[in-house]
Amino acid sequence: MIEQSVDDVMTRTVHTIDAEATACEVARLFAEHDIGSALVVDPATDDLAGIVTQSDVMAQVAGDVEIATVSVGSFMTRSVVTIDSSASIHEAAALMREHSIRRLPVVDDGELVGILTTTNLTHYLPRLRNTILRARGELAGQ
Amino acid sequence: MIEQSVDDVMTRTVHTIDAEATACEVARLFAEHDIGSALVVDPATDDLAGIVTQSDVMAQVAGDVEIATVSVGSFMTRSVVTIDSSASIHEAAALMREHSIRRLPVVDDGELVGILTTTNLTHYLPRLRNTILRARGELAGQ
Repeated sequence: MIEQSVDDVMTRTVHTIDAEATACEVARLFAEHDIGSALVVDPATDDLAGIVTQSDVMAQVAGDVEIATVSVGSFMTRSVVTIDSSASIHEAAALMREHSIRRLPVVDDGELVGILTTTNLTHYLPRLRNTILRARGELAGQ
Repeated sequence: MIEQSVDDVMTRTVHTIDAEATACEVARLFAEHDIGSALVVDPATDDLAGIVTQSDVMAQVAGDVEIATVSVGSFMTRSVVTIDSSASIHEAAALMREHSIRRLPVVDDGELVGILTTTNLTHYLPRLRNTILRARGELAGQ
């Protein structure tokens, strides 16, 4: 369907990391799980404290920073744009474009339930095309 | 239109780097231009020799590697999946999914003309939705 929701395409496994972890440790997490971001969660409150992405680590590597000691908390993004799992995928795509971001943590009633990335949305594209073709009757009966 | 081509949505500015550059240097290129990959081009033949991504650099940071000296040529991906600019965007999306990749260098007749990323495809999604709605007449006259 055209109004597919975030819930239909998001990744349900969310990787979190402590703000005290180092740039090297988060790079290891990214490499191990083939992921591009991790969410930083406050261990006391379980609240979302920030997001750390490959680009953030890249900026540390690029700078004159000791990546074996610099902590995630010092370079993560604190203001995180999130989306509700019931939002439509086109709302999510528009939000990513507006904020120039590639990942949206999915939060329902304050609880982290998944993450939506440009990769999730790309994998959904061929299905969307079939929806159009069906709407036009070109795939009728298939 | 539904059969939008790679040429319509790709990024035309392609960043290239020398195979002799270090992990730190490529991280600096990524950070400076807010990009996630660079193409490695043979300086003698101008042929595409490989691609280096944030994930590749991340794996070096994660390992016990001296990132200030390790060269891009030693950890880049040599077998590069490319696409023609006249291919459709759904072909591109399917190719990315098949190979679990997020970027496709666009090559026409052996010449590098652009790069297509999951971000380009995501930015295109809202337009695709409008195409569906128009096909259904819900946006007729708009």
